[in-house]
Amino acid sequence: MQLTSLDDVRAAARNIAGVALRTPLLPTRWDDGLWLKPESLQPVGSFKLRGATNAVARLTDEQRARGVITHSSGNHGQALAYAARRAGAPCVVVIPDVAPAVKVDQVRALGAEVVLVPPPERLDVAQERAAKDGLALIPPYDHRDVIAGQGTVGLEIAEDLPDVDVVLVPVGGGGLASGVSAAITALLPHAKVVGVEPELAADAQESLAKGELVAWPTELNYRTVADGVRVNLSELTFAHLRERLDRIVTVTEDEIRAAMTRIVREARLVVEPTGAVTAAARLFHADELPAGRTVAVVSGGNVDPQLLIAAIS
Amino acid sequence: MQLTSLDDVRAAARNIAGVALRTPLLPTRWDDGLWLKPESLQPVGSFKLRGATNAVARLTDEQRARGVITHSSGNHGQALAYAARRAGAPCVVVIPDVAPAVKVDQVRALGAEVVLVPPPERLDVAQERAAKDGLALIPPYDHRDVIAGQGTVGLEIAEDLPDVDVVLVPVGGGGLASGVSAAITALLPHAKVVGVEPELAADAQESLAKGELVAWPTELNYRTVADGVRVNLSELTFAHLRERLDRIVTVTEDEIRAAMTRIVREARLVVEPTGAVTAAARLFHADELPAGRTVAVVSGGNVDPQLLIAAIS
Repeated sequence: MQLTSLDDVRAAARNIAGVALRTPLLPTRWDDGLWLKPESLQPVGSFKLRGATNAVARLTDEQRARGVITHSSGNHGQALAYAARRAGAPCVVVIPDVAPAVKVDQVRALGAEVVLVPPPERLDVAQERAAKDGLALIPPYDHRDVIAGQGTVGLEIAEDLPDVDVVLVPVGGGGLASGVSAAITALLPHAKVVGVEPELAADAQESLAKGELVAWPTELNYRTVADGVRVNLSELTFAHLRERLDRIVTVTEDEIRAAMTRIVREARLVVEPTGAVTAAARLFHADELPAGRTVAVVSGGNVDPQLLIAAIS
Repeated sequence: MQLTSLDDVRAAARNIAGVALRTPLLPTRWDDGLWLKPESLQPVGSFKLRGATNAVARLTDEQRARGVITHSSGNHGQALAYAARRAGAPCVVVIPDVAPAVKVDQVRALGAEVVLVPPPERLDVAQERAAKDGLALIPPYDHRDVIAGQGTVGLEIAEDLPDVDVVLVPVGGGGLASGVSAAITALLPHAKVVGVEPELAADAQESLAKGELVAWPTELNYRTVADGVRVNLSELTFAHLRERLDRIVTVTEDEIRAAMTRIVREARLVVEPTGAVTAAARLFHADELPAGRTVAVVSGGNVDPQLLIAAIS
C-alpha cells in the first residue's frame, strides 16, 4: 500500500495556507522539556480543519462546484463545513438524529446542509446522497488527502523545533498520527512519533501488537471520556502506523482529566479530553516514552462546558 | 518628552526573541473582521513578559548580575521573575501581605525572592531594597524599555496583518497602548490604535479629554472586575497616548463578562477580564470605533477559577 509522502504533506501545506492556522509551539510551565501544539486554536477548534481543507482543495473545479458530503457529526463535520464554505463549495453533513442540538446548529451556522438520520443509516444515507448529487464523500480519516492535510502539523513541528526528540499524537482513526509520522520520519530521522490512546479505547495499541487490524466494538470504545478517539483504525491508517509509529502508550480516564486541568489552568487553553491525552502521557507515563524534547499535540478544544467546569473546579 | 520610537521597538523584538512567544492572530468565528492577538498564551500568561524581558536585556552585565526588583504582585511581577530567571539574574518581588497565597507561590515557583509587606509600604520597601543591594527597579509600565517591549505586540500585528484598520488595546497604566501605538503609527499610518477601558476605571479617557493627566482614586478604579487596568497612567504613558492614540472607548462590567464568555467558548482561550475588554468594545461599541479590519489584543489569561467558571456556566 502506498503511504503518504513528505511531498504529499508539503503540497497540503500550500493548499491549507490562509485557511488553517499555523499554530505556535507553546513551552509549558510545568515541564521544561515539553511544548504544546495547540490545534484547539484552529477556527473550528481542531486539527481536522487541515485535512478537510486539503481534501476540498484537491478536488477538481467541477467536483468542488457540485459539493462535498460527510457523515461525521464531530470535529470533522464542522471542519468540512468550514473548509467548503471557504472554497465556495456546497456541503452536506449527515448527522445522527440523537446528536445534541448544539452540534447541529454549529454545522448549520457554517453554511452546510444538515441531514438528520437514525444512527445506523448514517453511512448509507451519505453514500446514496453522494451518488445522487455527485458529491465528493470526504471521510474523517480514511482518505489520503485528509491524512496529508493532518501531516502539516508534523511539518510545522519539524520547522519550529528541529531538535525535537518525541512527538506525541492522539490516535483515534489514525489520520493525525499517519500524517504527522509521514512528515516527522522523513524530516527528522532521529525523532520518534508516539501515539497515545485511552486505556479504554486501545484498539490501535492492540492492532500494532498483533500486527493486524483489530477493531474494538463501539460499546467498548465509548467508555472513554475522550470522544475524539472512540473510533478504530482503517486499513490505510493502520498501514501508516505500523510502518512509522515508534509505539503507542495508553492513559487512564483520571489521567486525562488531570491533564485537562493542567492545560486549562497553566497553559490557558480550553481543551477537550482527546486534546489532553498526549499531555497525560508525558505527565504520567514518562517512563514508557523515549526521552528528550517532546511536543504534545493538543488536538482540539470543543469541550462540553460541564467537563470544562469540572476541570477547573 | 521623547517618545518610544519604532527603532526602540525593533530593538526590543530582537531582545525578546526566544523568551516571549510570537503569538499568532486568531480569526474569530463570530466576526469576519476581527482577529484576536492572544497574549494569554505567553509563558506567564500575559503580554507583560515582553516588557520585562526587554528591560532585563537592556541592563548592563553588571546590573544584571546584581539583579532586578519590582513591586507588582500581578502579571508584571510574574513576568519579571520569569524574565530574570531566563537571563540568570536574581529577582526580588515585593508583594502586599494581603495578596492571595497562590500569587505568592507562583512568583516563588519562578525562582524569585518574595518580600511581603503591608500594602502602603510597597514602593518604599522596593526602593530601599533596590538602593541597598544595587538592584534595578523595573516598574510595570512607567519605563521606556518596558514600553518598547510591549510595543512588539504592535510590530507583530503590523507584520501579520498589514491591512489592519483598527488595533484595540486595553489601557491600565498605558504601557501596552504606548508601545503598540509606537509601532502601529510608524508602520501603518492608515491604521488607528484605540484604547479600551472599563467605564468604572476610565481615568485615561478622562485624561485625554481634559488634555492633562487625571488620576482616579484607588477605591474608584477597584470597582471593575478587570483587575489588570485598575491603575492610572503615568506622565510618560500619558504623553504617548495623547500623541498616538486615536481615542478611548469604555465598556461596562456586563459587557466584559459577556466577552469573556464569548472568548472562552468560541475562541477556546482562557482569558482574564482585562483580556476581554477589547473584544467587548468590538462586540458592543462597534458604532464608536473606526470601521474595518480589527485586531483585539487579548492581554492576559490569569483568571480566578471562579470567574472562569462563571463565564462558561
